[in-house]
Amino acid sequence: MKSFSDYSALADKAIKDIRYPGGELDPLYEPIGYAMSAGGKRLRPGVLLMACEAFGGDPEAAMDAACGIEMFHNFTLLHDDVMDNSNTRRGRPTVHAKWDSNTAILSGDTMLTLATRLISKVPDNRLRTVLDIFNNMAIRVYEGQALDMEFEKSTDVTKEDYIRMIMDKTGALIGAAAQIGALIGGASDKEAQEMYEYGMMLGIAFQIQDDWLDVYGDSSTFGKPIGGDINNNKKTYLLLSAMEGDESQRKALTDAMALDSGATKIKVVTNIYDRLKISEASQKAVSHYSSLAIAALKRAGIKDEYKESFRKLTDKLTGRKR
Amino acid sequence: MKSFSDYSALADKAIKDIRYPGGELDPLYEPIGYAMSAGGKRLRPGVLLMACEAFGGDPEAAMDAACGIEMFHNFTLLHDDVMDNSNTRRGRPTVHAKWDSNTAILSGDTMLTLATRLISKVPDNRLRTVLDIFNNMAIRVYEGQALDMEFEKSTDVTKEDYIRMIMDKTGALIGAAAQIGALIGGASDKEAQEMYEYGMMLGIAFQIQDDWLDVYGDSSTFGKPIGGDINNNKKTYLLLSAMEGDESQRKALTDAMALDSGATKIKVVTNIYDRLKISEASQKAVSHYSSLAIAALKRAGIKDEYKESFRKLTDKLTGRKR
Repeated sequence: MKSFSDYSALADKAIKDIRYPGGELDPLYEPIGYAMSAGGKRLRPGVLLMACEAFGGDPEAAMDAACGIEMFHNFTLLHDDVMDNSNTRRGRPTVHAKWDSNTAILSGDTMLTLATRLISKVPDNRLRTVLDIFNNMAIRVYEGQALDMEFEKSTDVTKEDYIRMIMDKTGALIGAAAQIGALIGGASDKEAQEMYEYGMMLGIAFQIQDDWLDVYGDSSTFGKPIGGDINNNKKTYLLLSAMEGDESQRKALTDAMALDSGATKIKVVTNIYDRLKISEASQKAVSHYSSLAIAALKRAGIKDEYKESFRKLTDKLTGRKR
Repeated sequence: MKSFSDYSALADKAIKDIRYPGGELDPLYEPIGYAMSAGGKRLRPGVLLMACEAFGGDPEAAMDAACGIEMFHNFTLLHDDVMDNSNTRRGRPTVHAKWDSNTAILSGDTMLTLATRLISKVPDNRLRTVLDIFNNMAIRVYEGQALDMEFEKSTDVTKEDYIRMIMDKTGALIGAAAQIGALIGGASDKEAQEMYEYGMMLGIAFQIQDDWLDVYGDSSTFGKPIGGDINNNKKTYLLLSAMEGDESQRKALTDAMALDSGATKIKVVTNIYDRLKISEASQKAVSHYSSLAIAALKRAGIKDEYKESFRKLTDKLTGRKR
């Protein structure tokens, strides 16, 4: 049985093998090569390749699409980092920090078109379906990013608003990766739709887990400093859950959010979370969406060994131990 | 006989009729509606529709593609305005000036995907060809923009470099509009290729004419203040032609470029241009590329009345009087 890491390693190799025009066009393409070589989990292309093989396809036949999905993902990171003014990603300077924001904008635009071109390399009989899935997914990702930026300014965001936003911003892309992989592998539209559902639910679970790790994670494995979201007053699943408490709890939380960034603020907010059992509530939500992911997987009707590989991936991403 | 303005009016109406999602997504879509309603010549969609009919197609069948081409063009304007920090376009604040640069980036990204989706509405048997033309064109436009930004920093740009850059940045898009319209209208690949050539040559002629108008145009009809390029030391066809003079002329020009912006600088540089007969040389280049456009049109083998409409458009855009 192959595991997810086999597929992600396959994708990683293909992504790093992509060659870009050079010479006088280096200022445009060098940042693209830099962004694409950063590594990371290769979650989306790995899911795409695994879904392809799960329906009997050859992962090599899905490699262009896998690279396209990762190119799209990295395009959104380039532009998000400009919008959020983030200077570090995966331990390295972001493109707009290393070059400048104009470079991040234009190289990002180029990546979006390169991604569309890679995705379009599917066989003719799948072209329209796959292209529609890809374009509709992209629109959802932008809408999710727009909502995320709106939420920063808003004071009455609910947990439900948040779930809807991460469905757009995170879930849709993982869903589309699984769906496109399945279609290339030979799945029926119905089967591919179930794989989309799997990816969507996995995306939600994964994002809530990421929010949880920011507070309760192990700094040596999380990759980001613990409490970053708390310091930034980020409207995470944890914060929005805590905001559902009574008036006095909301007041305590609002007061804590007004504190200056630092260890004290992180401690005060974490104490409120602990009192409200937010960790348990978040983990329950992660379990809930993970189960929905697994259920979709069963409906998709893939062979047991692939079901097992996807289940293991789900557990790994959501910190489950079975 | 229908004239270009009939087709551009048709496109203008369809573009203004596009409806966007609203409500909480207003922050994403309102700037798109704003940008798309700005008007302008509707050159690219008009060319696309006219090319479609010239090959016997119904312009209505090409309307989605025409809107897609204009959407793509406006996406590039949104991002270019962020990169150039331009605050005014067509007499109104640019999107990044009216909202902010994050809005211009994200709404621009959305426009690129919306454009791809509109372009993809061509019939199945043309989908791959049209999509490939569109994506390859988009890459050329980004490369042209990258070269344009490089040229600003460089001191040894030649007239030939400049032509190559405007072929990418301006010509490729008008060429693709003509080619896609022709294909939807029923043209053979060979005929559509000639229409691409027409649009490409028209784009070069049009851009050189635009450079010329900046110096020798009539401020009441040009739409921008005369001498803007001179004040910004922009490497236009005129400046690069003048730079081909001997050492003493280059020295005079370099000295003039070091002057503060204003009427004196414009006058000094214009005097140098006059001495070097740059106006005549530029107009000769405009004629040259216009003739190449008309020659491609003839090879495309369209009916005389459409040839005449395209010839009139070429004359209008390049200020020719016949």
